[in-house]
Amino acid sequence: MTFSNQRLNNAIKKLTGLPGIGPRQATRLAYFLARQDNQRTLELSQSISQLTSASICSNCFFIHENDFGPDGLCEICSDPARQSNLIAIIEKETDLISLEKTNQFNGHYLILGDLKKNGILEDEQRRRIEHLKKNINQNLNSQAQEIILAINPTSFGDFSASLLSKELAPFATKITRLGRGIPTGGEIEFADEDTLSAALQNRN
Amino acid sequence: MTFSNQRLNNAIKKLTGLPGIGPRQATRLAYFLARQDNQRTLELSQSISQLTSASICSNCFFIHENDFGPDGLCEICSDPARQSNLIAIIEKETDLISLEKTNQFNGHYLILGDLKKNGILEDEQRRRIEHLKKNINQNLNSQAQEIILAINPTSFGDFSASLLSKELAPFATKITRLGRGIPTGGEIEFADEDTLSAALQNRN
Repeated sequence: MTFSNQRLNNAIKKLTGLPGIGPRQATRLAYFLARQDNQRTLELSQSISQLTSASICSNCFFIHENDFGPDGLCEICSDPARQSNLIAIIEKETDLISLEKTNQFNGHYLILGDLKKNGILEDEQRRRIEHLKKNINQNLNSQAQEIILAINPTSFGDFSASLLSKELAPFATKITRLGRGIPTGGEIEFADEDTLSAALQNRN
Repeated sequence: MTFSNQRLNNAIKKLTGLPGIGPRQATRLAYFLARQDNQRTLELSQSISQLTSASICSNCFFIHENDFGPDGLCEICSDPARQSNLIAIIEKETDLISLEKTNQFNGHYLILGDLKKNGILEDEQRRRIEHLKKNINQNLNSQAQEIILAINPTSFGDFSASLLSKELAPFATKITRLGRGIPTGGEIEFADEDTLSAALQNRN
């Protein structure tokens, strides 16, 4: 039996392919939303439609709601107390939030979006890197103090980082990546060889 | 730094707690939806709000859009070709869809919703079981031919099934559960003891 469930199927189709949501979870979600209290489903729908009014920072490309900042800048980029010649290149907004939570970083960001595994930048990513170069040339006297490639330390991430590192070398005094080692709370016994090697090299 | 991202935080709050979505994925989703093409985000929002018009079958409690059926019945319950004295009790709509895909079941369903691990039925689940009993008494001459407890073969599922089995014993000639054994494509070597024991008992 096929069901003539046009609205359910439409919602399943729209939910499938969102980050981390496959067809099975999309189906579960759609039935859950159809089943639960209508008011709550409408509130979800509304909260999603309101996201379309969020802005994207013209400098770091962070999604934000700082509607009153100059030139569409986010709170970080429009904060004069932050160091503009220290720039962390990250993939996702959630990475920015994680880094901000440490309270250890007082620079600016550049959000690139998820990097492809083949190391090739998409058009939009290319545009953002060019924006960064232009920004460094115009506002930082052609040289940032440091660019941190805060990209995941996976083999694909390492590959992308090495390409970016070469490309951006002329634009920063120093190009770094996040330190590697045993995570806090982790056990030496269970650390893989690469992590342990890195922990040895980074001992302090 | 805390962000004054009221709309993003609102969406994150509403997304968190949906089936299979934790706070981290909710954050990723909200930023993704804020970032992507506005039209697509609005389409998702709309497809979700339209789910509120789905109906719930007054007999089996399946979510459906069969708006023209008699008495708010779903397509399965209003299909005279289906056997009404063979009833599968299931937890989720997606279980129904999976069973329908086999084309091996021509009976009716009763959707209970996710069972609690302590085996105690929630008020709504209790109401549905009472509805089933009343239906059997009124329309099936007090005795269904068979009730299949199509509940997951986990230890919690087994517990709930044994309680339901006792309660429903007077209402069906036969109470069964789905067969257990090695899944198609599975390997004997990797089957756990319980599965292998069941496979031995169910050999054919």
